Amino acid sequence: GQVRVVAATSEASAGRKLSDLYPGLGPAGDIPLSALAKTELTSKTADVVFLGLPHGESMHVVPDLLKAGIKVIDLSGDYRFNDTSIYETWYKRKHTAKEMAAKAVYGLPELFREEIKGASLVANPGCYVTAAVLALYPLVKADMVELRTIIVDAKSGISGAGHHPKAETHFNRIAENVVPYKMAGTHQHTPEIEETLSLATGQEVSVAFTPQLVAARRGILAVAYSRLKKEYSEEQVQEVFRAAYQKEPFVRFLAGGDEWPNLSSAVGSNFCVIKVDIDSRTGWAISVASLDNLIKGASGQAIQNMNLMLGLEETAGLSQIGLIP
Amino acid sequence: GQVRVVAATSEASAGRKLSDLYPGLGPAGDIPLSALAKTELTSKTADVVFLGLPHGESMHVVPDLLKAGIKVIDLSGDYRFNDTSIYETWYKRKHTAKEMAAKAVYGLPELFREEIKGASLVANPGCYVTAAVLALYPLVKADMVELRTIIVDAKSGISGAGHHPKAETHFNRIAENVVPYKMAGTHQHTPEIEETLSLATGQEVSVAFTPQLVAARRGILAVAYSRLKKEYSEEQVQEVFRAAYQKEPFVRFLAGGDEWPNLSSAVGSNFCVIKVDIDSRTGWAISVASLDNLIKGASGQAIQNMNLMLGLEETAGLSQIGLIP
Amino acid sequence: GQVRVVAATSEASAGRKLSDLYPGLGPAGDIPLSALAKTELTSKTADVVFLGLPHGESMHVVPDLLKAGIKVIDLSGDYRFNDTSIYETWYKRKHTAKEMAAKAVYGLPELFREEIKGASLVANPGCYVTAAVLALYPLVKADMVELRTIIVDAKSGISGAGHHPKAETHFNRIAENVVPYKMAGTHQHTPEIEETLSLATGQEVSVAFTPQLVAARRGILAVAYSRLKKEYSEEQVQEVFRAAYQKEPFVRFLAGGDEWPNLSSAVGSNFCVIKVDIDSRTGWAISVASLDNLIKGASGQAIQNMNLMLGLEETAGLSQIGLIP
Amino acid sequence: GQVRVVAATSEASAGRKLSDLYPGLGPAGDIPLSALAKTELTSKTADVVFLGLPHGESMHVVPDLLKAGIKVIDLSGDYRFNDTSIYETWYKRKHTAKEMAAKAVYGLPELFREEIKGASLVANPGCYVTAAVLALYPLVKADMVELRTIIVDAKSGISGAGHHPKAETHFNRIAENVVPYKMAGTHQHTPEIEETLSLATGQEVSVAFTPQLVAARRGILAVAYSRLKKEYSEEQVQEVFRAAYQKEPFVRFLAGGDEWPNLSSAVGSNFCVIKVDIDSRTGWAISVASLDNLIKGASGQAIQNMNLMLGLEETAGLSQIGLIP
Repeated sequence: GQVRVVAATSEASAGRKLSDLYPGLGPAGDIPLSALAKTELTSKTADVVFLGLPHGESMHVVPDLLKAGIKVIDLSGDYRFNDTSIYETWYKRKHTAKEMAAKAVYGLPELFREEIKGASLVANPGCYVTAAVLALYPLVKADMVELRTIIVDAKSGISGAGHHPKAETHFNRIAENVVPYKMAGTHQHTPEIEETLSLATGQEVSVAFTPQLVAARRGILAVAYSRLKKEYSEEQVQEVFRAAYQKEPFVRFLAGGDEWPNLSSAVGSNFCVIKVDIDSRTGWAISVASLDNLIKGASGQAIQNMNLMLGLEETAGLSQIGLIP
Repeated sequence: GQVRVVAATSEASAGRKLSDLYPGLGPAGDIPLSALAKTELTSKTADVVFLGLPHGESMHVVPDLLKAGIKVIDLSGDYRFNDTSIYETWYKRKHTAKEMAAKAVYGLPELFREEIKGASLVANPGCYVTAAVLALYPLVKADMVELRTIIVDAKSGISGAGHHPKAETHFNRIAENVVPYKMAGTHQHTPEIEETLSLATGQEVSVAFTPQLVAARRGILAVAYSRLKKEYSEEQVQEVFRAAYQKEPFVRFLAGGDEWPNLSSAVGSNFCVIKVDIDSRTGWAISVASLDNLIKGASGQAIQNMNLMLGLEETAGLSQIGLIP
Repeated sequence: GQVRVVAATSEASAGRKLSDLYPGLGPAGDIPLSALAKTELTSKTADVVFLGLPHGESMHVVPDLLKAGIKVIDLSGDYRFNDTSIYETWYKRKHTAKEMAAKAVYGLPELFREEIKGASLVANPGCYVTAAVLALYPLVKADMVELRTIIVDAKSGISGAGHHPKAETHFNRIAENVVPYKMAGTHQHTPEIEETLSLATGQEVSVAFTPQLVAARRGILAVAYSRLKKEYSEEQVQEVFRAAYQKEPFVRFLAGGDEWPNLSSAVGSNFCVIKVDIDSRTGWAISVASLDNLIKGASGQAIQNMNLMLGLEETAGLSQIGLIP
Repeated sequence: GQVRVVAATSEASAGRKLSDLYPGLGPAGDIPLSALAKTELTSKTADVVFLGLPHGESMHVVPDLLKAGIKVIDLSGDYRFNDTSIYETWYKRKHTAKEMAAKAVYGLPELFREEIKGASLVANPGCYVTAAVLALYPLVKADMVELRTIIVDAKSGISGAGHHPKAETHFNRIAENVVPYKMAGTHQHTPEIEETLSLATGQEVSVAFTPQLVAARRGILAVAYSRLKKEYSEEQVQEVFRAAYQKEPFVRFLAGGDEWPNLSSAVGSNFCVIKVDIDSRTGWAISVASLDNLIKGASGQAIQNMNLMLGLEETAGLSQIGLIP
């Protein structure tokens, strides 16, 4: 391969090997874990660092890494807003690295590929956001829909809620259930959807976002509703999606047919599967995007970003298809 | 009890006992099954008949039962529209008992209790419709929301898709999945939601309806989005729900608190659990209703209707609470 | 009803109402919770107390309740062994009420009905044990099987592991999984199965017990293997089960047919469903018992015991059937 | 890659592309499907053919393929018994290619690697059998256990029951369930376990086999019980497993630790994960094997066999690890 893992950090499991925690990794897991502060990271040993720290901790670590000449892909929310006042409002904490945040690039290759190629600091998108934005972007870009009445009703697998045991992730709570949470404009991914669409299209967008946990380990299914500005045919709305995504290696646009993306359509792969149709009786465009929240919604997208930042083939290391069934 | 089962019919299992099919029923299942045509049903033997026939078959059976002086509760779609042209458009077949359909009463007690008490023929509501209508009715009635931009994003357990094995109900298809189907204005429950809200409020309503199958045996969770006509406070929208449902024995309205209804909130009971809030940033009212599609969404509601039609206590036989967990 | 709940205790939720924790209980949950030590329990206010304390705590509480003239049904393991040395070995703690333990009656009505009727202190059986013992008892009693080579391979729903969130009960751990634990003779229910069978039959029995968690909220399925002492026909082994259980209100013995009990056969009810057959090629009798671990395996059996202790109808309050599906 | 797919056959979907059926395959699925009879298969076009036909059909197809000089890996049961009288008894049909069956090699590399390397016809093992045999082989080979009292209690995901919709595979039947079937010596994999162990060790073995369907799409967990001939320590039994499997690329033997294989330990990979311990109180050795029924239990093992037959690296194309979680 063209990439080598030189270090892996863990505060809770420092001193153990990665394969102790995840035996299923096989030989790939034979790497020692050390605390971040005790891990020597210099531009000589590492070209890029992936940070999977809790929100609020990345902002303290990133500046030193960048100063050391290491590129950073940050999977927390800390650098996802160039305007940190939005971060401070929604994440309810002070931001301590505002200038750096202003220069971070948002790591959604389908919208910001060229910026990512030249970036030192990439903010990897939130899991819900990738699905919601890819479902809406062509419609907003083509100026086909109203910008203030958009709804995203999204369903997520439980791995999105972390592996720490909580009442919310207990099997007895989730089995055969669908659990709405952080409803009515309170989930912190809401402004990230809005800002990303606005940044990419130059138009101000607002979104009502409804997150729901479902009885699945992985997968996000985002159903987006946007009001058509005038009468468009099914073919016209599909055409803007086809045009937007036809060269994208990790977007599969389904045109025609009755089959819509479902929650597990892309599980196990870095794909985002998308379909759009119109409800001509009521004037809504309905677009649906499905992806694996841990791959295209997190680590897979992070690798895609790394490939772009390092000048590698964008699809390198990301060819795995999902399990059927 | 005040009610006795005098006959049970089955075409496929005529000659067997009900308990042969469902041993878990215990002694309550010790009743022989006979073909409908060979079952003697007269006003001397039966006060009321529940019909659980496929769509398109009830319309041929109901007229004779009514002529025989027996009250009928029909669980098919055949008599749910007084205007049968709507039926013919969405169910794609001719209606052969139009006059009778014009006189049928829609069996949603929370909206049509008095009409049900005097009815000979009650059309029991569709499973999605009860949830969607109860989630929206107070807002429409109070004239708080726009009538042409309503969205219902609903999730249903698999028992809503019948017990006949199909590719769509295979465990491997449904496990850890969410499957949208009949999207973008094609599901036959769409006009039933619209007609019921219109009939109860006198205003014409249109709804974009998105049905989805989820990895659960039972339960329907309807998330309804309606645009507020002007700025209302959270308390104001909650108040119209409280007022509408405070005397309802089978509606549990959750006011305040962070906990929203989830898919399993009412499973095992005849309750419909409801909560509403507003997204003041975007101007949407979001109301959520949860019920057991086989009880409040079907057979429990049918018993509730029977109780009303026969002058019994409305809650008789319906006190069962769900399993926890 | 013939019974009234006069008090409910909770250390963690003292001061709240039961319905605050379980809103689905409806009006039945409108009862205040108080700490046990602050709850006045006398023979004037309470005829019987159900104790659902952690193992090791009941033994400190029971003596005072008995002295106050209140009958006790204890759902912990503290009083399940008349010989407390077994308890001390397997539960790894001292027993502080040995004389009381020697007089406790084991609350499995199918084996000890008469003793329960006269008891002041009933030790309610472990969830696995009820299933395992009912699957084996007729064979051991009839002296048909070897006593030292019995195997019980049992599968349990997750509610058996408690509602406190743990890594072992995280949805991501349990979904689509079967997890063996406390293997090879280490689970504390092992001696309880052995002692109960020995006490009821007068013969010393040893059992290899394999517990496994499965992706279900409720249910225990125990598959028991015992070696036939000589050649018996299928009919002969079935006959001893029929004879043992034909008058039992909560045991459903399936004779003939291809359908075996499955994990959900009895979920939602107080039934234990049982079937037996022989593998004549290899000389094993295979008997399978299924029950709801929270009902016949815990609280339902506790009510059955209360009914016997108070001279009520044994089935009072236990008529609920399960949900289908 | 060193291998190229030259043709794919399907009777039901001839004329379509593989990716029409499984869009998730991506570009790898862009291969046309043709009926087997209309697919030209010669030694010039194909080195090896994988046959996934129903039991009873392979025996009619294999002879011509072999005559054409093509190696065959047959995934049906038709060639798994050199003595076809066993096949005829358990599969309840005549065998029409007995001589060929007598020469087929059983495709379990861990036991028959050298024979597979030289084989023209390999019978790929049954899904349950690989797990059961790998769990028992070291104990039988080392002559540590009795040969006539072995039990295998196995749990399988639903993909083992095929993708054709049946009552047995309906979501409502399987959700939160464990379903025993073909009990007490009637499942056709029983003699395959016995014959394979006997062939590999030269000793006659009999097994009581209990198959059970569980609420999972993939995975087999086999719990094997065998009586120790004399007292052995935990270390002694573990040592024979370590010795047997230490060089095996696809067997992961867990020595020490409390963690046992669970149903999902190997899902997504070609691994078989194994652990053994003794219940010294009762004299049983308990060995547990877990694998993915569609990979090590079917297609992955078939590729492993192909690699051996063609002289390729045994692990080629089989490096995929499973999803976590």
